[in-house]
Amino acid sequence: MSDTIERAGRTLERIKSQSPLVHCLTNSVVKNVTANALLALGAAPAMVEDPVEASEFASIASALLINVGTLDTFQASSMQEAVVAANKAGTPWALDPVAVGPLSVRTQFAQGLLSQKPTLIRGNASEIIALSGRKSQGRGTDSGDSSEAAIEAAVSLISKTGGAVLATGPVDCAVDKNQRIACSNGHPLLTRVTGIGCAQGAIAAACLACADSPFDAAIAAALIVAIAGEIAAERAERPGSFQIAFLDALDELTPEVIAKRAKLS
Amino acid sequence: MSDTIERAGRTLERIKSQSPLVHCLTNSVVKNVTANALLALGAAPAMVEDPVEASEFASIASALLINVGTLDTFQASSMQEAVVAANKAGTPWALDPVAVGPLSVRTQFAQGLLSQKPTLIRGNASEIIALSGRKSQGRGTDSGDSSEAAIEAAVSLISKTGGAVLATGPVDCAVDKNQRIACSNGHPLLTRVTGIGCAQGAIAAACLACADSPFDAAIAAALIVAIAGEIAAERAERPGSFQIAFLDALDELTPEVIAKRAKLS
Amino acid sequence: MSDTIERAGRTLERIKSQSPLVHCLTNSVVKNVTANALLALGAAPAMVEDPVEASEFASIASALLINVGTLDTFQASSMQEAVVAANKAGTPWALDPVAVGPLSVRTQFAQGLLSQKPTLIRGNASEIIALSGRKSQGRGTDSGDSSEAAIEAAVSLISKTGGAVLATGPVDCAVDKNQRIACSNGHPLLTRVTGIGCAQGAIAAACLACADSPFDAAIAAALIVAIAGEIAAERAERPGSFQIAFLDALDELTPEVIAKRAKLS
Repeated sequence: MSDTIERAGRTLERIKSQSPLVHCLTNSVVKNVTANALLALGAAPAMVEDPVEASEFASIASALLINVGTLDTFQASSMQEAVVAANKAGTPWALDPVAVGPLSVRTQFAQGLLSQKPTLIRGNASEIIALSGRKSQGRGTDSGDSSEAAIEAAVSLISKTGGAVLATGPVDCAVDKNQRIACSNGHPLLTRVTGIGCAQGAIAAACLACADSPFDAAIAAALIVAIAGEIAAERAERPGSFQIAFLDALDELTPEVIAKRAKLS
Repeated sequence: MSDTIERAGRTLERIKSQSPLVHCLTNSVVKNVTANALLALGAAPAMVEDPVEASEFASIASALLINVGTLDTFQASSMQEAVVAANKAGTPWALDPVAVGPLSVRTQFAQGLLSQKPTLIRGNASEIIALSGRKSQGRGTDSGDSSEAAIEAAVSLISKTGGAVLATGPVDCAVDKNQRIACSNGHPLLTRVTGIGCAQGAIAAACLACADSPFDAAIAAALIVAIAGEIAAERAERPGSFQIAFLDALDELTPEVIAKRAKLS
Repeated sequence: MSDTIERAGRTLERIKSQSPLVHCLTNSVVKNVTANALLALGAAPAMVEDPVEASEFASIASALLINVGTLDTFQASSMQEAVVAANKAGTPWALDPVAVGPLSVRTQFAQGLLSQKPTLIRGNASEIIALSGRKSQGRGTDSGDSSEAAIEAAVSLISKTGGAVLATGPVDCAVDKNQRIACSNGHPLLTRVTGIGCAQGAIAAACLACADSPFDAAIAAALIVAIAGEIAAERAERPGSFQIAFLDALDELTPEVIAKRAKLS
């Protein structure tokens, strides 16, 4: 396990030194905090929404995030173009299936993207379960299932994509075809600020650009967000000031701090 | 009046314990702060923009907000679908007629929604006056009229909708067909941060899900925002830090604090 | 040079006393922070996205900002309408050619707007160079060129528009057909928060509404953002808290502080 933690620290260092350009096609509620989280971490965010430009941008970007939280027809076509171009260019991409399950349009769209083999899928348990075609308990962006309950669904998704899955919750579970690791770091305040989960999808994309494998990227993204959340919660006890402290903590995070705090099993 | 204040406290407690799911179709400037204000208060925000999904979501959501601040044709059709589905499902909904008056498309659209009988209308005086078809002094989102001047317009709107109106300003006025109460809590810094007024529309929707009547929801929304603003202004004297302190104050707010500070007449 | 600085202070005072209404057609990542920056400075922001309303709004607004960061077809038509109406009404407008260069749709669109003679163009060196039709080194919103390298391009743009250019970077360069001034104020943290550059475009539009010339507006916008950044960096050393301190510093800024800190050459 100490190897895994060390590799997560190395991924963090590479993000800070290489500043990967992360193209985020994400929902309209969280664009600002997503960009700020990437900048605080040391990555470079970009949001290019036009379908033609989204395709052009794939050759420039280091990684791509597709988050379907406020999907509309215009953005859906940009996402399609961006994914095809990313795959052509060999650019890794992360899929965040926000609120997939109870809502039909995004569910069909996100399931359709599975054939394009997302390098990493990040979602809460209900989203992972629903994305795999199983029956979930989700209510909007809240999960009614535990991340452990999503492991079977994650394994099924991986059999289609060949990538990794990060199922988030009080305990985060990273899964690929060979390994499963649970991360129990984190803090309840992380769920009291909008967009931290979505920002984690973008951070996972940044990790894809710098990690040795999709699985390593999943673990790194889990540790970075959960530990930054712990640090922030030691300094701010309410959601407004917590959001600011969280961004500061992303800026401040080091491999040493990750090594000291990581709780993997 | 102490009964009214007590009921506002009870509404606040229910929001914190029941975490109503508030579907916000709102303007693109304020989505993030709206979601964060709801989360800080203890409610659960959701922004579902696709017309098909917006309709599906009505059966899941506890309340709906329609805010026309950056109306476009795509969002207008989502709003139409969401309102019809909300009415069918018996889900209460709030209308925030942002900048209605000088701008023709939203004015026509918002006036058209009146026949769907919004449970609560929240706007500044100029918006309330213009929505009722009278001549207003509004300039963008700034009101050129006092909230007291909007009472006649509010009464006219209520005769169409059967609901309540919250006309905001230095003094907020809640009106329904039987009652009028003015709330003189608040602080000038509340107008120096974008989206606090719009977030109040979402908070009013959360209150609709938990209060005993639309009028009670209007009063609760007025008190929650104004008193959180007062608390924040005691801790932060400039708009950047005020916004953060305001979110923290929403998290911290209790029925006891409301009872102690409320200035109703 | 002390005259120039004094006029920048006067522009700041006028913004605070006149509260110019700045219509921002800007990208979806930065709308919130743009509005908050204008409010903190004392201006009044408005974002009206519908093409018909964007045209109507030109007669109400004091200045207009066009920022192409997340251009889509709907917003492009609003921008066209708004620019035509602004020119008809004599309303000054600023163009921010975000990421023009590597991306084709916005490059063509922004170059097409040059014939409408933007009063002020604000961009980093790569964007200014690319907008003028020269070959740039831009990568997304990051500049691969120095602002000094953009002066030739700026001069070429001014020959078409008759206005001013503010080329931003570690050193900002303001240029019009008669003058060139460099501003070396600022702080690296200004680049670690998303949207501060974009907010500067909106601040430049506010300055256009209150300054004696487009060149004066360019200098004032450079000084306001750079000096607020210096003040914020003395109080906050990480990007989350820096963003808040920056908004507070905009609120606090006075002509005296500008005079004391300005580094022009």
